[in-house]
Amino acid sequence: MSSSSQINKRRTKPAEVRIDELMSAAQTLFLEKGVEATTISEIIARAGVAKGTFYHYFESKQHIIEALKKQYIEFFIGVLDNAVRQCAADDWVSQFKVWIATNVQTYLETYPVHDIVFGVHHHERKNSEKNMMLEQLLQILVGGEQAGIWSLGQARLTALLIYCGVHGVADEAIANQLENTADFSEQIALQYLKMLGHGELNK
Amino acid sequence: MSSSSQINKRRTKPAEVRIDELMSAAQTLFLEKGVEATTISEIIARAGVAKGTFYHYFESKQHIIEALKKQYIEFFIGVLDNAVRQCAADDWVSQFKVWIATNVQTYLETYPVHDIVFGVHHHERKNSEKNMMLEQLLQILVGGEQAGIWSLGQARLTALLIYCGVHGVADEAIANQLENTADFSEQIALQYLKMLGHGELNK
Repeated sequence: MSSSSQINKRRTKPAEVRIDELMSAAQTLFLEKGVEATTISEIIARAGVAKGTFYHYFESKQHIIEALKKQYIEFFIGVLDNAVRQCAADDWVSQFKVWIATNVQTYLETYPVHDIVFGVHHHERKNSEKNMMLEQLLQILVGGEQAGIWSLGQARLTALLIYCGVHGVADEAIANQLENTADFSEQIALQYLKMLGHGELNK
Repeated sequence: MSSSSQINKRRTKPAEVRIDELMSAAQTLFLEKGVEATTISEIIARAGVAKGTFYHYFESKQHIIEALKKQYIEFFIGVLDNAVRQCAADDWVSQFKVWIATNVQTYLETYPVHDIVFGVHHHERKNSEKNMMLEQLLQILVGGEQAGIWSLGQARLTALLIYCGVHGVADEAIANQLENTADFSEQIALQYLKMLGHGELNK
């Protein structure tokens, strides 16, 4: 933190708190009323800040959605990261299963936010959040391969097939209002372990 | 066709031709200018019909997009169906590979239309076109299982994982401007054949 913001901090709430309050107000309103129907004035009123404060940090409603998107991605990756870390460092099968199960469960619990931050840009075919998730998954896949647990042909293609498949079946689970995702995720993981040749190598 | 439309046919273009001209004009304009920027007046002008003719067949721009969507899905399913029919009826591996390869190739060739008709409704998590594609894929998967070529655990889940995976990697192929999809599709098919336990059963 720079020395000038240290000084600001004494007089008023620090920037991070203001930004947090604005983003939290915006997200609540987006969830309640939808993005279209929410105005910047309402966000300002809900956060209890002056108009100038909003525009000091955000240029537009789209800009605050971008910030929420970044936050959601970081949250999502963080949840997965934490869950995977609970597994033994050399237990690649568990890490893989936990990555899938936590992914499905977290998506089901948070899809209304997902839909707000990704709703508008369906066909951005290149996006950084996909790459961050792929990196995480690739780490597990490559770890397992190096340990001789399974084999990969084209690692990135495999990771992408798994990432997209999991996202897709989780969408269906949401549509079907699935409540217990544990069995569902286990079935998905078993299919992919077969794709990775895990069962085969284990025989 | 009813007798009254038989009579109409003698005097003027039949309804199907009119509808076709309007849909074709709309699709061309949507591709050129985008859906938002295209007005119904422009569609009417391009199709060379009277305003009343448009509203006789379509209530709104959204309504004509729905019709284009139905047409696109029928076209897409038809292309896949045709391609699969070129394979021997008992050659399930070829049918599976051809289904994937044709899917990827057709999507790459027609994604601008895909984006027009699906662009607005990303998060309709239940949609009929997905079910039609799944039915087609399930027919191949179940056929192969009955022939003892591979084994399925939960057939629909497997079909969904494959459908979503193929759609997702094809999106990436579009983003990367991939031109030759043959090798790419072969790699995808091989991974899924492994998931189906095909290699294993063949040994």
